[in-house]
Amino acid sequence: MNSLNILNNIRIVLCATSHPGNIGSAARAMKTMGFQHFYLVTPQHYPDPQATALAAGATDVLDNAIVTSTLSEALVGCAFAIGLSARKRNLSHEIVTPRIAAQQGLQIAQTQPIALVFGTEMSGLSNAELDCCQLLAMIPANPEYSSLNMAMAVQVMCYETRMQALEIEAQGNGKDEGADAIELATNEDVERFYAHLEETLLHIGYLNPAAPKKLFERLRRLYARARLEKEEINLLRGILTLTVTPKKHTKY
Amino acid sequence: MNSLNILNNIRIVLCATSHPGNIGSAARAMKTMGFQHFYLVTPQHYPDPQATALAAGATDVLDNAIVTSTLSEALVGCAFAIGLSARKRNLSHEIVTPRIAAQQGLQIAQTQPIALVFGTEMSGLSNAELDCCQLLAMIPANPEYSSLNMAMAVQVMCYETRMQALEIEAQGNGKDEGADAIELATNEDVERFYAHLEETLLHIGYLNPAAPKKLFERLRRLYARARLEKEEINLLRGILTLTVTPKKHTKY
Repeated sequence: MNSLNILNNIRIVLCATSHPGNIGSAARAMKTMGFQHFYLVTPQHYPDPQATALAAGATDVLDNAIVTSTLSEALVGCAFAIGLSARKRNLSHEIVTPRIAAQQGLQIAQTQPIALVFGTEMSGLSNAELDCCQLLAMIPANPEYSSLNMAMAVQVMCYETRMQALEIEAQGNGKDEGADAIELATNEDVERFYAHLEETLLHIGYLNPAAPKKLFERLRRLYARARLEKEEINLLRGILTLTVTPKKHTKY
Repeated sequence: MNSLNILNNIRIVLCATSHPGNIGSAARAMKTMGFQHFYLVTPQHYPDPQATALAAGATDVLDNAIVTSTLSEALVGCAFAIGLSARKRNLSHEIVTPRIAAQQGLQIAQTQPIALVFGTEMSGLSNAELDCCQLLAMIPANPEYSSLNMAMAVQVMCYETRMQALEIEAQGNGKDEGADAIELATNEDVERFYAHLEETLLHIGYLNPAAPKKLFERLRRLYARARLEKEEINLLRGILTLTVTPKKHTKY
């Protein structure tokens, strides 16, 4: 469930990063999303204490980073490289959203290594670097201010890829990992509660005995939306019992 | 295409942020995704030169931030609040992925303001803060290291919400034709109902006056899940009034 081995087939590649803090933040972002293979192409400062500080609990990812002098070297063994772009380019590259990129990338990562490639903070990927990629992804940012911090872009891409990987895995073993093991009330429990509620509301004069259904339907709808749990039915019925026969406070 | 007015109905709320740099980074993350309404509940340092530096081109979002002394104040006028949680909690709050949270939130944001609420860097949202939220979202992070930087979490949530908003817009004109124009209760309406409920439950002896909060929290969560409508609040408060002073049946 938590291994998500497919993510081990994906490397994160940063090209010519200027700020060591961004390298550290990217390492942290990677690890939170379950990625570990980190490549740095000609970083301006690495290793660097600022990178280590911002990596927080992901210094292992940072320390194991592989430094190369060209992007091609960083992509050795990869079957597919997705480049991140902050702007539309006049190129024949296909440009897709991070979601589509993650879908396409994971298809391939099931059997072969792939890479997510990020350019410099100032100017993104060069044309030469883009030529090493098979697909361009663009985060659909605010056209009036589209300047995501580079580590933020790493976080978004890793997040999308992880979400997609979790979905693939959920389809595979048919398990819904998001579901909590809370016991919901059964239909009978809920109906007994409604009967108790109606009786109580008649007792206190809230419902019109001649036409009790009208208002009551509204209340049923409210509780239906809440999807009542078994334990909550007990709480609510406890209230109803005391509504009819209040307890003396001194009992406490 | 680029207006995405619906995002103007969504506010980003940071609770008790320690590091001013995170406030600045969050402002930048917001603006890149097209969000502008920023609320800071008791920030430790604000304004601060580090926040300004990290906001980069989003100093307008930062400068227009509204500082409040409680979360309730920051939520005035909101019909729905989504809290971000870094861990599973032993509560009956519904926990969903950012994607599902964005879908549910945008449904409501079509007609009423909503909020995305983020806790402190160290410990996230307190239980009292969670009680102000109707839905919990959890980024499905690596269980072995799930510590996302807070501004990164803001980026991910804003990204998901933007993606979803773009999708809605692509499908139509931004309006969900199927959606009913039901007016949800505001945060203030709901708080007044809770106060009335607590008072009534003390009156009938359901809550222990020495420790009323324990059971009461369960009830708050139940109603939070239901996302109460304005009219339902009136129905429920009508019941509470009659619980204390029953009406004679013969009135009908």
